Amino acid sequence: MKPLILVTNDDGVFANGILALTKAMLPLGDIVVVAPDKPQSGMGHAVTINNLLRLYPVKYDIPVMAAYSCSGTPVDCVKLAIYKVMHRKPDLIVSGINHGSNSSINVIYSGTMSAAVEGAVESIPSIGFSLLDHSAEADFDAAGRVANILAKNALQHGIPEGVCLNVNIPKGQFNDIHGIKICRQAKALWEDNFDVRKDPAGKEYYWLTGEFKNLDEGDDTDEAALANNFVSVVPVQCDLTAYHAIQHLQHWKL
Amino acid sequence: MKPLILVTNDDGVFANGILALTKAMLPLGDIVVVAPDKPQSGMGHAVTINNLLRLYPVKYDIPVMAAYSCSGTPVDCVKLAIYKVMHRKPDLIVSGINHGSNSSINVIYSGTMSAAVEGAVESIPSIGFSLLDHSAEADFDAAGRVANILAKNALQHGIPEGVCLNVNIPKGQFNDIHGIKICRQAKALWEDNFDVRKDPAGKEYYWLTGEFKNLDEGDDTDEAALANNFVSVVPVQCDLTAYHAIQHLQHWKL
Repeated sequence: MKPLILVTNDDGVFANGILALTKAMLPLGDIVVVAPDKPQSGMGHAVTINNLLRLYPVKYDIPVMAAYSCSGTPVDCVKLAIYKVMHRKPDLIVSGINHGSNSSINVIYSGTMSAAVEGAVESIPSIGFSLLDHSAEADFDAAGRVANILAKNALQHGIPEGVCLNVNIPKGQFNDIHGIKICRQAKALWEDNFDVRKDPAGKEYYWLTGEFKNLDEGDDTDEAALANNFVSVVPVQCDLTAYHAIQHLQHWKL
Repeated sequence: MKPLILVTNDDGVFANGILALTKAMLPLGDIVVVAPDKPQSGMGHAVTINNLLRLYPVKYDIPVMAAYSCSGTPVDCVKLAIYKVMHRKPDLIVSGINHGSNSSINVIYSGTMSAAVEGAVESIPSIGFSLLDHSAEADFDAAGRVANILAKNALQHGIPEGVCLNVNIPKGQFNDIHGIKICRQAKALWEDNFDVRKDPAGKEYYWLTGEFKNLDEGDDTDEAALANNFVSVVPVQCDLTAYHAIQHLQHWKL
């Protein structure tokens, strides 16, 4: 029996990145696409609990088993796909290919990666893919080939339970990529800034802006791999327990 | 100088839980409240990047330095508070007290906890509090006293960098609580279900429902502590790297 593969993303069901990812998965199994009906970047692990959800069949020019757009978040898409559309857990979930990086701390804000993390919660091998190129004309050829290689390995070897993969791909041609590196998440943050503007009625509002700061000089991080034109692969877990901190807390007066 | 404490939540700026938490923090420092203007449960680590944000001063009957409602998510509240309202990093961030549990896997869906995790990203000691009682008439007295104890310890001892605390408090009176336990996150998931309904025009829509399944029999988990009427304290980290899985991935053909 051919593997059953769920494809989703956070840029919307007709984004170039998800079309490239779907094409890259075609040789590997039967494909079902369930993805947001509008951009859902930065949605993190949001799930719709105070509103209804809609699911619409959409026409895909790629020969998939089924394709749907969903009114909710990427995590909603995974939940609806597993429990309503597919009626069984898929053998693999792939999310992306995101238009822009999800390396280091971006993993926690990313809708692309939250879809993969939801797969890990469900004990399904899951991978999120992101290309370091925000532009509308981004070339997804190399990223699609990388996605095919990693998905093939995930289907063959599995991924440890409760873990998914955060894969970031440098911009450029496939032959210019130096290789694929298993990494840890670099310590980094966004130094936020807020544009203060006035609306036509003269009332203030804010736009989030900011600058990415890599605080990590390690050569085993995703940031280091990407800076050297390697694909970065970070195994990401849904057990958030900081085991090393348990000792520290034993000293508290509780 | 008195400690500067940021109070936020995901149930909205006038929820009973945040009023109880603010009162519990009053003896410990100067308080600034920045919290959502509407319920933001289940928003996970969502951040508003495709829309503007509004900030409104609100009147609090508790003697705080300042209180604002924000049109965004809990993570937006933390970012706006640090970078726009307070103009410096606070000494402590507390989030909650959530109306309902955020134990085990709920940590990744929770807006309450995502505000605390955002604090950890910013290297600020941060704690999320949740009471195991969803009802509108929930009694937050015991939870407020627990919050005071833990906040006092966090101000005195600090919390390891990149780590925040997920604190869940059993329902009931303070004297009925057996103690406070440092735990790991239990392995669990939601077995989702979707109610299928028809709108007045006859078109189908879905509501997320589901059943919580604890898959973990360990006696060192938050679920086990809560079941025995202990407060559970799980240290939570923003480095999501699954270090134990790196070895496994070295065998892949990449």
